[in-house]
Amino acid sequence: MPVFEETSDARRDLRILPSRALPLPRFSPKTSTTGDEREVVVIGAGPSGLFLTLLLARYGISGSSLLCLDSKPGTLKAGQADGLQPRTLEVLQSLGIASEIIAEGCHMEEVAFWNPAADGKSGIERTSFVPDVNVPARFPFEVTIHQGRIERILQENLSVYAPEDTIRRSHHFLDYTVDTVNHPEYPILVNYEHELEDGSRVPGSVRTKYLVGGDGARSKVRKSMGLSLEGETSDHIWGVCDFVADTDFPDIRNRSAVHSEAGSIMVIPREQIATGEYLTRLYVQVPGDVDAKTDRTTTTEDEKKNASKKKRAEVTLEYIFQQANAVFAPYKIKVREGTAPDWYAAYQIGQRMTPKFSSRTSDGVDRVFIVGDACHTHSPKAGQGMNVSMMDSYNLSWKLAHSILGLSLKAAKDSADTVLETFELERVDTARQLIEFDTKFSHMFSGKIGSGDSSTAGLTHDEFLKVFRDGSGFTSGCGLEYKPSKLVRAAKSSQDMVISTGDPLYGALTPGRRVLNVELKRFADNTTRQLQDELPSNGRYRLLVLTSTNLLDPSGYSQKALKACADIVESHPAGSIDLVVLHPIKDRFEWTQIPSDVKKLAEMRTYGLTKKEDAYDVYGISRGEGAVAVVRPDGYVGVLCRLSAPGIAEDYLGGCLVTV
Amino acid sequence: MPVFEETSDARRDLRILPSRALPLPRFSPKTSTTGDEREVVVIGAGPSGLFLTLLLARYGISGSSLLCLDSKPGTLKAGQADGLQPRTLEVLQSLGIASEIIAEGCHMEEVAFWNPAADGKSGIERTSFVPDVNVPARFPFEVTIHQGRIERILQENLSVYAPEDTIRRSHHFLDYTVDTVNHPEYPILVNYEHELEDGSRVPGSVRTKYLVGGDGARSKVRKSMGLSLEGETSDHIWGVCDFVADTDFPDIRNRSAVHSEAGSIMVIPREQIATGEYLTRLYVQVPGDVDAKTDRTTTTEDEKKNASKKKRAEVTLEYIFQQANAVFAPYKIKVREGTAPDWYAAYQIGQRMTPKFSSRTSDGVDRVFIVGDACHTHSPKAGQGMNVSMMDSYNLSWKLAHSILGLSLKAAKDSADTVLETFELERVDTARQLIEFDTKFSHMFSGKIGSGDSSTAGLTHDEFLKVFRDGSGFTSGCGLEYKPSKLVRAAKSSQDMVISTGDPLYGALTPGRRVLNVELKRFADNTTRQLQDELPSNGRYRLLVLTSTNLLDPSGYSQKALKACADIVESHPAGSIDLVVLHPIKDRFEWTQIPSDVKKLAEMRTYGLTKKEDAYDVYGISRGEGAVAVVRPDGYVGVLCRLSAPGIAEDYLGGCLVTV
Repeated sequence: MPVFEETSDARRDLRILPSRALPLPRFSPKTSTTGDEREVVVIGAGPSGLFLTLLLARYGISGSSLLCLDSKPGTLKAGQADGLQPRTLEVLQSLGIASEIIAEGCHMEEVAFWNPAADGKSGIERTSFVPDVNVPARFPFEVTIHQGRIERILQENLSVYAPEDTIRRSHHFLDYTVDTVNHPEYPILVNYEHELEDGSRVPGSVRTKYLVGGDGARSKVRKSMGLSLEGETSDHIWGVCDFVADTDFPDIRNRSAVHSEAGSIMVIPREQIATGEYLTRLYVQVPGDVDAKTDRTTTTEDEKKNASKKKRAEVTLEYIFQQANAVFAPYKIKVREGTAPDWYAAYQIGQRMTPKFSSRTSDGVDRVFIVGDACHTHSPKAGQGMNVSMMDSYNLSWKLAHSILGLSLKAAKDSADTVLETFELERVDTARQLIEFDTKFSHMFSGKIGSGDSSTAGLTHDEFLKVFRDGSGFTSGCGLEYKPSKLVRAAKSSQDMVISTGDPLYGALTPGRRVLNVELKRFADNTTRQLQDELPSNGRYRLLVLTSTNLLDPSGYSQKALKACADIVESHPAGSIDLVVLHPIKDRFEWTQIPSDVKKLAEMRTYGLTKKEDAYDVYGISRGEGAVAVVRPDGYVGVLCRLSAPGIAEDYLGGCLVTV
Repeated sequence: MPVFEETSDARRDLRILPSRALPLPRFSPKTSTTGDEREVVVIGAGPSGLFLTLLLARYGISGSSLLCLDSKPGTLKAGQADGLQPRTLEVLQSLGIASEIIAEGCHMEEVAFWNPAADGKSGIERTSFVPDVNVPARFPFEVTIHQGRIERILQENLSVYAPEDTIRRSHHFLDYTVDTVNHPEYPILVNYEHELEDGSRVPGSVRTKYLVGGDGARSKVRKSMGLSLEGETSDHIWGVCDFVADTDFPDIRNRSAVHSEAGSIMVIPREQIATGEYLTRLYVQVPGDVDAKTDRTTTTEDEKKNASKKKRAEVTLEYIFQQANAVFAPYKIKVREGTAPDWYAAYQIGQRMTPKFSSRTSDGVDRVFIVGDACHTHSPKAGQGMNVSMMDSYNLSWKLAHSILGLSLKAAKDSADTVLETFELERVDTARQLIEFDTKFSHMFSGKIGSGDSSTAGLTHDEFLKVFRDGSGFTSGCGLEYKPSKLVRAAKSSQDMVISTGDPLYGALTPGRRVLNVELKRFADNTTRQLQDELPSNGRYRLLVLTSTNLLDPSGYSQKALKACADIVESHPAGSIDLVVLHPIKDRFEWTQIPSDVKKLAEMRTYGLTKKEDAYDVYGISRGEGAVAVVRPDGYVGVLCRLSAPGIAEDYLGGCLVTV
C-alpha cells in the first residue's frame, strides 16, 4: 500500500480547470472612466459578433472593457447557416474549440454530381464523385452542424474569459453619435433600447472607443455609417428544408449536386441528432423566374418585390417535397415517418456588399467597423456565409486588440493605426472574391446542364466541375491570399527576401497566405506535434526560424539568425512575439550545441522533422538555405527572408509592434 | 440579400446541445419503492467510483436509481495519480470525453534511459531512447495530467446524465447489512454518517440492490465483505514531488529512468499550467532499506511500521532535491525561481490485492463489489494505478447495467447472472498480472544497474529494457487478454470458429482482446472513420460482419451471413446489438446489390477500406473468407466465427442477452 505523507499548495486548485489562453500584455493606460464606458461595443451576437466578442475577451479586452448587445431575447434556435469550411475549422482548432464540432458534426469529403441520364433514359444518374476539398488542409473536409450549436460553443468559451453580462440580449441598437471634442477617449455614444419582458422599451446609451456592427444583413450600424449593400437580388428562388429523410436516393448522405430536366437540388448531409437519426438539408430550386410573366422593362422595383414575395409565399413544405420528387425521379424522398421537419424556408439568391467596412471619426481614427452579413450577403449554395463572416471578425479582432492595448505602432504624425487599417483592405478584397465566386457558382447551379438552354450558354457538366474545382482554394478558405500591405511584404521587394519553391496552394510559404499545418517532432520531449497547434490564436506574432543544415556550426548563418531573432523578440513587449524554431538535422544533438537563447525562449517550440512529412519540402524552403518568416497573429505569413537577413523580419515587426 | 420565410419546430431546441449517448433499453420492471431505495449505491468518488457512477448513468441507471457517497467534502485538489495509458485513452475516447485530456495533457512517446557514465567518467550519461508504447494503439503515447482534472471531466459529463445530487459528499460509509427475506428487492442496507459543516455527524442509511466499493486502499466496503489486502509492503522508500523545474538535465521533458551510483530517479513530464510553464514530477529513491540496521528475524511488525514511518518522515523537500542533485550530477536541478512546488510526499512501494472482488448474498446474487485501490495496490512507478482502477469499473459497469435492466440472460434454475460473474474472473486475473509486473518492475527499478550489487543479481541495462519492452502490452493496457469464459469463447472450441493470422498484440482479432482501431471509409457518405469511434461505449454488443470478396454474389456466404446476422439483431431487444459491416470491395456498388437489411440496420455502420490501412490485414482475416465477430460492449472480442457459421455468434449472444 502506498503510504503518503502529503504537503500540498493552494496553487494546485488551478490545475484541475481547463487551460485558458494567456491575454496579451497591456501597454496603454486604461483611462479612468465614470464606470459606464467601454473600450469596444459589439452589436449583434450571431456568429460574427459573438466570435469577435470572444476573440477580444481572449486577447485581454474583457471585464468592463467589452460589451455586446443583441436584439434577440435568446440564442438562435432556428438556424440558417450550417457549413464550416476547412480554414474555419483550423481557426477554431487554434482556439481549442473545434473538438465537439469535428467529432459530432457531419463531414463532407466528397460531392456527388447527378445529371439527366444519358442515352435517352428517363430520370437522373450519377456522373461522378469529386473530392469536396481540392487543396491540402489540416481537416480535408467541410463540416455541417447547426449554427445555434456553434454559437453555444462560442458562448460557453466566452464565459471562461468574460463576465456573464458581457452579452446583453433584448437590446436594440438605434444609432450612434460622435463627439471627439468633449469625449476624446470615448467619443462614440451608442444609443439603444432595452426591451423588457412586457414588450415595453427603455432607452439607454453607452460610450465607447470602438463600435463594431455584426448586426446582419439589415445592419443598423451600417446604416448609421451611411453605407448600404450594393448589388442585385437575382430572380432565382429556392426552397430549403432540414429534416430526417426516408429515401432510396443512394447519395443522401453525400453532398450532392443534382441537375435534372425538372430542376436542381443540392443535398447537404447534416449531423446526427438526439434520436440517433441523421438530418438532411435540401435546397430545391423553384423553376422559372419570378417576374417571367411581366415585361421587365416596365416592372417597377415595388412590383418586382411584390412578385418575389408572392412567389416565395408559394414555397410550402408540400411544394418543396413535390418538386424534390420531380427532380429525384426515379428515386423517391419524404420525411421519415414519426418525425417532423425541423425548419423550412424560401429565399432568393442575391449578391450584395458595401464598398467600405469602416468609418473614421474626426480625430483620424477608424472607430466604427462592420463585419459579416452587415458587409456582404450572398447565396448559401457554396456554404460560405458563416465562414467569411467569422473570418472578418478573426481578421479584425487582433488588430483592434493590439491598437487598444498599445501594442501596435502608431504612425508618427497622427493617430491613425496602419495595422488596423489593413482590416478593411483585406476583408473588402475577400468579400469581392466571395461575391464574384458566388455569382458565377449560383448562376451555374441554377441553370440547366446539358439541356441546351441558351440562357446558360452551353453549360456542360465539365464546365460546372471546373468552376467547382477552381473555386476550392476560395471555398475551402485555404487558398485566400491577402494583398501586399504593411502586414504583407511581397516576396520580390528585396533580394534578401525568399521566394519559396512550389505551389502556394499546396503549402509553399508565401506572404499573405496562411501557414499550412505540418507534423513535427518536438526536440525537448520527442513528441509528435501539429505546427498549427503550436501557433495558437492568442494574438502573438511568431518569428519562425527554419534553420539550415549548418545549424550546429557556431559561426554559420543558422546560429547567427537564432541570436538575431532572439534579440528581436526581446526588443518587443514580452508576450507579443513567440520564437519558433525548425531544424532539418537528422542526428541527435544537445541544447548545448546551439545558442542558449533557443532553450531560454523556445524550449517547447523547437522542432525537427517527422518521417510522415518534411516541413521544408511542404514549405518550399531549401534545407541548405533555411529562411526566417514572420507569421501574423492570425496565422498568415507577413514576410519571408533569408537566414542571413533577419533584419528584414526586424524591420517588418518594428513597423507593426512597439519596442521596449 | 437572402429573404427567409421561416417556419420552425420546437424540436430544434435540442439541436444546439452536445450529443449524448442513448441509454440502454429497460426490460426489467422498476420495482416500486418507498422512495429511498436505489438500484446501485457506489461508495467513493475517486477515479474508479466516479467512473463507475458515470458509466451506469450513461447506460440508463440514473435519476433515483443511482447514488454515490464520498467521504471527502469536495473534489481532489492534491492528486496522486497522473498517468493515463493508451487503452484508457481509447476508452475515454469511446465515451467522447478524451479531447481535453489529449489536447492539454503531456504526451510521453519516448523514454530516456540514463546510467552511470561508461569508461570511468563520473556522473551519468544517456544510454538510449526507447518508445514508451511498444504495441499498436490508437493513441501511441501515455498522457500525464492532474488526477483532479480527470475527475472534473468525469463529473462534468455525469452532470449531463444524472441529477446534481447523485454524488453526495461528506458522507462516510460505515458498513452494510443484508436482509433478503424482508427486503428481497433491495436487500442491502447501507449505513453511513453525514458530516455537517460544524464537524458533527448525522447517521443515515439507504437500501439498495447492489453496492460497489470504490473507496480506496483502506476500503470499508472491503472490510464489511470480510476481505483484506494480502501481500507485503516492501522496504524501498521513494520521495515524489510535482514542481516547475529549472535544470540543465537535457531530458527533463521526457519520461526518464535514471540510475546512478547515488540512486535512482524517474522523471515524469507533466502538463502545461496556467502560467504557461510546464510541471515535472520526480520520483526520487531514498537509498538503503528501512530496517537495515536491525536484525530482520527479530523485528516485529510494529517495529517495522515505526521504522518505516520514521524514515518517511525524513523525506523533506530539501532531502528530495539534495538526493536528486546527487543522482543527476553533473547536471543540476532546482525549483524554478518564483514558483513553489505543488506537492510532495514519501511512500513505500508495496504490492497487495484481495483474492475476491465480489460477495454473494444468500439469495444467490452477486450484490456487493469492489473496484480500484480497494482491490489492489502497488507502486506508481509503471503508471498503472488509476488506469487499472478505472478499467475495473469499465468492466463491471455494463455487466451490472445489463443485469439491472433485465438484458442479461439469467441462469435457468437460480438467479445467478453468469455474465456479471465474469467481472471477478476477469479483473482478479488482471490484478494478478498487475501485481506480478509491478513487483518485478519496481524491484528492478529500485536496484542499481551495472554496479555488481549482488541483491539485484546481475541486473544489466539490457535486462531492464527487456522487462520494460515485454511489459508494454500490459502497461499500455492494449495487450490485455481476458481468459475463456461465458463471454470469451476460445478460438479453437469449434471448427466453425476462425483463428486470425498474425500477432494478437498487433491487432489480429482474438477472443478476449480489444478490437484495435482501424481507419475505414464509410459506404454511405464516403467519409473517413475510425472504427473505435463507431463502437462507442454505450453498453451495446456489436455483430461485426467482415464480408468477403463475394459480397455481391446473391447466393454467396457474405449475403447469407448478413441476412442471418440481421435476424440475430432483430431477435434481441432493439438497442442491445448494433450490426456493423465491413467489406473489401474496391469498385463502387449500390445499396440495391446487397441485402436490404444492411441499409435498414447499418446504413451508417457499413464500411470499406482506406488507402492508409487494410482492416482485413490488420485483423488477420482473409478477404476471400471473411468472418463474423461478436464484440462485447467494452470493445473486447467475444467470439470469432466463419461467415458460413453465424450460428456460433447467435449461440454466443443467445447465452448473454434476452430474446424478444
